[in-house]
Amino acid sequence: MAGKGILLVVSGFSGAGKGTLLQKLLEKYDTYVLSISATTRSPREGEVDGREYFFRSREEFEAMIAAGELIEYACYVGNYYGTPKAYVEEQLALGKDVILEIEIQGARKIKECYPDSVLLFLSPPSAEELRRRLTGRGTESMEVIENRLSRAAQEAQGIEDYDYFVINDNIEDCVQQVHQILESEHSRSFRNGERIGKIREEVGKFQK
Amino acid sequence: MAGKGILLVVSGFSGAGKGTLLQKLLEKYDTYVLSISATTRSPREGEVDGREYFFRSREEFEAMIAAGELIEYACYVGNYYGTPKAYVEEQLALGKDVILEIEIQGARKIKECYPDSVLLFLSPPSAEELRRRLTGRGTESMEVIENRLSRAAQEAQGIEDYDYFVINDNIEDCVQQVHQILESEHSRSFRNGERIGKIREEVGKFQK
Repeated sequence: MAGKGILLVVSGFSGAGKGTLLQKLLEKYDTYVLSISATTRSPREGEVDGREYFFRSREEFEAMIAAGELIEYACYVGNYYGTPKAYVEEQLALGKDVILEIEIQGARKIKECYPDSVLLFLSPPSAEELRRRLTGRGTESMEVIENRLSRAAQEAQGIEDYDYFVINDNIEDCVQQVHQILESEHSRSFRNGERIGKIREEVGKFQK
Repeated sequence: MAGKGILLVVSGFSGAGKGTLLQKLLEKYDTYVLSISATTRSPREGEVDGREYFFRSREEFEAMIAAGELIEYACYVGNYYGTPKAYVEEQLALGKDVILEIEIQGARKIKECYPDSVLLFLSPPSAEELRRRLTGRGTESMEVIENRLSRAAQEAQGIEDYDYFVINDNIEDCVQQVHQILESEHSRSFRNGERIGKIREEVGKFQK
């Protein structure tokens, strides 16, 4: 019954609530798994290889790039980060919906390699609310906040490239909405070739 | 908040449960309206012009065709049946999701004129179940049933042209599923140009 899973790419402004959304989706439904990235940065305390990240040396990472084992990768603050193809495809084949949290360039790359993937952009209800959430955290300096807001302005340019635009006003409603989108995507004809073929064959026997 | 409505085209084998599905959607949610067809056939007892159908003379109907006032039309048992553009567009502008029950040729025509419409094919869980439902009604002759089954075999050829393939196993689940599909469709980026433009403009002010 499960069929093949869907690759769901989630992007959105810092402060849109991506982290909470993903955490709640994973808690609430057993159909989702998070994609695990590979990185060359050192593990922080408590981080486990193959759980938070696949920790790799720079040589190993570059060998993965060369072998085409990454769907996408980027360099950030001197370290590589990338999405290993093998883990994603293994989970999709098991019927899991695999969630990837990634920014716009990565999202475009994913859609290129996996045209059947679903790209979703998460937004706060307003820019004012975004600023309130970022300052409300109280953990970041004004400079960091301003950088994030400025970055949001850039990210907003690419929203049309996403399949869905979801506003996170109330987090529980938002979790429900994203889950419904995934359920609906599973009903798309192009994802149901096998079922359609079966019913076509069966009713074909009625042809006079 | 409402935005523009969605034109939902529902097709499916005779016996798939289209009638019950539409009736329940209309009962349960006030966001849907049925498209009203124009026809040249005579009103049956109890039928009201502008409710069941727009009843028109052959001359009037042909004038509508000539004036491009119909999205699609077909001739069936000597009478014209067609979908008047005006009613559909008026309801869409009011934010209503307009449902059209129509067969495959009509559905293709709708998608051509309205690329943003949603085409949904309803199927029973199996051909055996289809046969059971048709014979179970007990109201039709064996010949009529066999004609319907034979027709199903032809209709099954075009399922891939539909956006969604929904199996009606349990009618309540099915109503829920179709409603979720419509809700999800409302979150598509291309249907949210105005909202996206608004948030883009707002966060644009944060750009350094």
